[in-house]
Amino acid sequence: MANILVIGAGRSADALIDYLAKAVQTYDWKMTVADVSIELLNSKLATYPHIKPLVFDIFNPQQADQTIAEADLVVSLLPASLHGEVAKYCLANKKHLLTASYLSDEIKDSAAKVEQLDLIFLNEMGLDPGIDHMSAMQIIDNIKKQGGEITSFKSYTGGLVAPEYDTNPWRYKFTWNPRNVVLAGAGGTAQYIENGQYKYIPYHQLFRRTDLIEVDDYGKFEAYANRDSLKYREAYGLKGIPTMLRGTLRKAGFCDAWSVLVDLGLTLDDFQVDTTNMTYRQFFESFLPDAQPGNTLERLAIFTDRSVDDPALQKIVWTGLLDDELIPINGSPAVILQHLLEQKWKLAEQDKDMIVMQHQFEYLLKGESLTIYSDLVVKGDDQHTAMAKTVGLPLAIAAKLILLKKIQVRGVCIPTHQNIYEPVMAELLQLGVEFRENVFRLS
Amino acid sequence: MANILVIGAGRSADALIDYLAKAVQTYDWKMTVADVSIELLNSKLATYPHIKPLVFDIFNPQQADQTIAEADLVVSLLPASLHGEVAKYCLANKKHLLTASYLSDEIKDSAAKVEQLDLIFLNEMGLDPGIDHMSAMQIIDNIKKQGGEITSFKSYTGGLVAPEYDTNPWRYKFTWNPRNVVLAGAGGTAQYIENGQYKYIPYHQLFRRTDLIEVDDYGKFEAYANRDSLKYREAYGLKGIPTMLRGTLRKAGFCDAWSVLVDLGLTLDDFQVDTTNMTYRQFFESFLPDAQPGNTLERLAIFTDRSVDDPALQKIVWTGLLDDELIPINGSPAVILQHLLEQKWKLAEQDKDMIVMQHQFEYLLKGESLTIYSDLVVKGDDQHTAMAKTVGLPLAIAAKLILLKKIQVRGVCIPTHQNIYEPVMAELLQLGVEFRENVFRLS
Repeated sequence: MANILVIGAGRSADALIDYLAKAVQTYDWKMTVADVSIELLNSKLATYPHIKPLVFDIFNPQQADQTIAEADLVVSLLPASLHGEVAKYCLANKKHLLTASYLSDEIKDSAAKVEQLDLIFLNEMGLDPGIDHMSAMQIIDNIKKQGGEITSFKSYTGGLVAPEYDTNPWRYKFTWNPRNVVLAGAGGTAQYIENGQYKYIPYHQLFRRTDLIEVDDYGKFEAYANRDSLKYREAYGLKGIPTMLRGTLRKAGFCDAWSVLVDLGLTLDDFQVDTTNMTYRQFFESFLPDAQPGNTLERLAIFTDRSVDDPALQKIVWTGLLDDELIPINGSPAVILQHLLEQKWKLAEQDKDMIVMQHQFEYLLKGESLTIYSDLVVKGDDQHTAMAKTVGLPLAIAAKLILLKKIQVRGVCIPTHQNIYEPVMAELLQLGVEFRENVFRLS
Repeated sequence: MANILVIGAGRSADALIDYLAKAVQTYDWKMTVADVSIELLNSKLATYPHIKPLVFDIFNPQQADQTIAEADLVVSLLPASLHGEVAKYCLANKKHLLTASYLSDEIKDSAAKVEQLDLIFLNEMGLDPGIDHMSAMQIIDNIKKQGGEITSFKSYTGGLVAPEYDTNPWRYKFTWNPRNVVLAGAGGTAQYIENGQYKYIPYHQLFRRTDLIEVDDYGKFEAYANRDSLKYREAYGLKGIPTMLRGTLRKAGFCDAWSVLVDLGLTLDDFQVDTTNMTYRQFFESFLPDAQPGNTLERLAIFTDRSVDDPALQKIVWTGLLDDELIPINGSPAVILQHLLEQKWKLAEQDKDMIVMQHQFEYLLKGESLTIYSDLVVKGDDQHTAMAKTVGLPLAIAAKLILLKKIQVRGVCIPTHQNIYEPVMAELLQLGVEFRENVFRLS
């Protein structure tokens, strides 16, 4: 009787727990969901008496070791930095491990041992990274099978608010970790390749150098480049490809306004602001050059060489950053900005989120230049957010398929293997995760 | 018979060794100079048979402990990150410690123990930090003694090339650690206060938001803000001061050109460039937005909204960054840029360097608004660079005065105490370190 251990019952766990709870009944397996919070466990598992809740601390070595020893397969939904800790116990007890996080050097270093123990440590098995890899590899392998040569691959993903609930001037609400949104791009220089030329975009320019894309029925989106476009050339079998870019989507207009905040320094996270008796406007003034005539908005307009009714500046006014209201917390500029935006970009009770993905391929096939656009739109519903579905379901499906021995890939990997992406994407399709594909002939 | 241990015989050691070698003869003391390099020791100590050279490794615990145990006072000229290691042995063996580096949290944490052992750990005892603190405190204490109230204090220091040898379009040559020059400002957001308003300048704007200052007989300089202007308010006894800024000087025109390199991303240090078969021009192209018509310079002009003969762009052309020459090394953009600049900004054999410092005070005294400008210019000579003199002599003088019990301050400190700065500045004056002071009445 197979035993699944899910560690972490937070935001991304809902759809995964629902899916696996059914699989566990179908196949007569056992399942434990472990989390530090008893309240979270109670709320998430109320309708599943056959799933065991476990108050769990990964930093309690005895409990961690024993709990993982009793499982056959572990899904870690912990913050990415803690997967290494989980991996340690999985290795010691010979258990499979699945995560939706970027493959870390720490886990990569255990590759030989994982293979030797006949285990799979499957990483990047969520949405982005995850579904992006799998859906791209379907197309890449298909083009290659036909004898085509891929010359350009651009891939964009965004977690956004669904159009019906798109009610603020930024056309954005937090549907995922707010801190990661505020610090998006700050972690390192964006690197990609365009027509054989490496391109590097420093953080302060990231939101000014965007691509504009369009998705049928959903309008225009802007994309800023991800940090890591180069390293996937090898993983995708596209080593010599002249153009490759991975980016993140926002609704048109967002990036221009956000670039003003980045340029001013509002997303800095390397020092603490003393906010004693400080208003948001005074805080904002700290980032404007030395006093010139005019009110804060007028001086912002001068600094940015825009007019006061510029849409980007009006978005900033809307956030409340120019208000004479006292700041109730201390922290870095990024923390203060996040605190304000969490009130303004809050998803209301009835609001639904939306995932948008677009792959753009250019390739040569039998003397023809072809282009494929492949789009995915997933919306949240009353049960689950789109984010929870698209992050949780790939993990859940892969967990099931590994236990059913329908996935027999071994080692440390990401889901670029056909033996992984094919059965997982087939099942995702049944669950409504469906790409729309358009092929154009250019010549 | 007092015994002085100097650890580190690098660039800043020359003037310090010369000064202390004389003091050791005068007072019949002993002195050891310790360094990892026997060649360096032989070259630096050739003319001083009474100074003991010691091949020394701070990471050899037995040698470090024994060597420091035999000394009465230790001057550490090691890289700043290693002072903590030296401090450990100084504490264990009850020895005084002097450094020219910024006071670290690690050393600050040992304050109680240092005081208890009746020792002095004197930090920031070079030029900047060092002479800047001491010369500023002379003026601050003097204004306070008269009953004045300081409303603004700005302090600027630069290590530059002397005007006679100022022969390239940047008007700059490396007179100090090139890596620190290339990464200047990248370590953290600049923070200062202006008219009671905190001001934060993100790195990418640092070289665009400069102050222009003038020094009699030496012309115009630009200053970019240092990272740490706020924390010295307390150390200087200026806690409520409305305006305080510390900055770094370059000749006029430097910062505008450097800001273009920073804006492009040429000083990034967080990733490695694969330079296989890559020319400097191709490397430079990696930082320009996607291909537009024109050659590299023309496209740089478009990106920066300048003309191709703009002085900043011409400075960049002069560096060789747009040349079709292969890059001979791998590394981060900052490392590649540094490699190129080390050839272009190299101080020639006969070239002399120059230190420029300017303090600007505004204060109220008996109903009058007054301004003091206090300038220091020190040039290198055939014996020593200006940098070696201004970094090494304060340390050397303080070491002597501590051993002579003329400095009896104890604890972890920086030279803002009158009992330290007064005798040290008096002796520096005799050695030619002389400030020129101008007082203006504004009302």
